[in-house]
Parts: sequence; structure tokens; C-alpha cells
Amino acid sequence: MKAKAVFYHAGCPVCVAAEDKVASAIDTSKYDVEIVHLGNDKSRIADAESAGVQSVPALLLDGVPFHINFGASLADVKGGA
Amino acid sequence: MKAKAVFYHAGCPVCVAAEDKVASAIDTSKYDVEIVHLGNDKSRIADAESAGVQSVPALLLDGVPFHINFGASLADVKGGA
Repeated sequence: MKAKAVFYHAGCPVCVAAEDKVASAIDTSKYDVEIVHLGNDKSRIADAESAGVQSVPALLLDGVPFHINFGASLADVKGGA
Repeated sequence: MKAKAVFYHAGCPVCVAAEDKVASAIDTSKYDVEIVHLGNDKSRIADAESAGVQSVPALLLDGVPFHINFGASLADVKGGA
């Protein structure tokens, strides 16, 4: 069974660069990669928060959050920035 | 031909976690992954710096630096921290 990878972003330029490179570099034979746009899908923000995501872009691998560069804080995403 | 991925770290706990998850999640059919310990191999610090790496752990994909969480600044690594 494959592990789960979730790439959280919010459409920011830093996010797009990270999605383009990092999310697409993930080995899909090991991970099911889901891309979540928190700006468009605000119902997922609580999930991201409880996983420890503090800013976007972030990559959750097996439940462990990795913040990649810095696009926006989760607070900014909530506020609609 | 495969693209080049370089994972820079300095042995810090944040680095080890990132290496364990992120570096090992890279699709090795797309990337040749090199792991560089800047604390042990200080001759590579200049390369990392010129690629735009400011802190470790960092992942360079096709020459684009992505800083993953924050373990130590490159200045700290230079200083032997």
C-alpha cells in the first residue's frame, strides 16, 4: 500500500514553483500525491492545521509536515490573502 | 537523462527528519539524488551558497533551491555549529 503525500498550497508564486518542482518530484510508486489548494478549498484548512502545517507551500509525507520555502502563513490563507 | 537533485544538510535533527522523508521520497527515475553533509564537507558550502541555499535542510531540484523547514542557517554551518 502506498503512503500518502499531501501538497498544500494557496496559489502563490512560491507555491506554484514548489508544486512544479517538489510535488512533481515525489516518487508516485511510493506515495499517492494529493494537491490541495487551501485558498479554493477552505474546508481542508483544519486538516492542514491539525497536521502541523503552519505555512504554505507545505508537503505532508506520512503525516509529517515539511514547510517548503515560505509563501504565506496559514493565518493569511484563512484571512483570504 | 536524469535531472540533478541535491539534498543539503548538516546532521541536525530537522535535517535528519527531512532526509528520511523528503529526500527518500524523490523519484529516482527522474532525479539523481545526491546527499551532501555540509558540516562534514565544507568545500561544498560555496556551491550551496551560489545556488541560493540559505539554510539547511534544503533540496536543490534542477538548480532551484527549496528550503525545507529550518534546521540551521548556512552562516551557522560555516561557523561550525
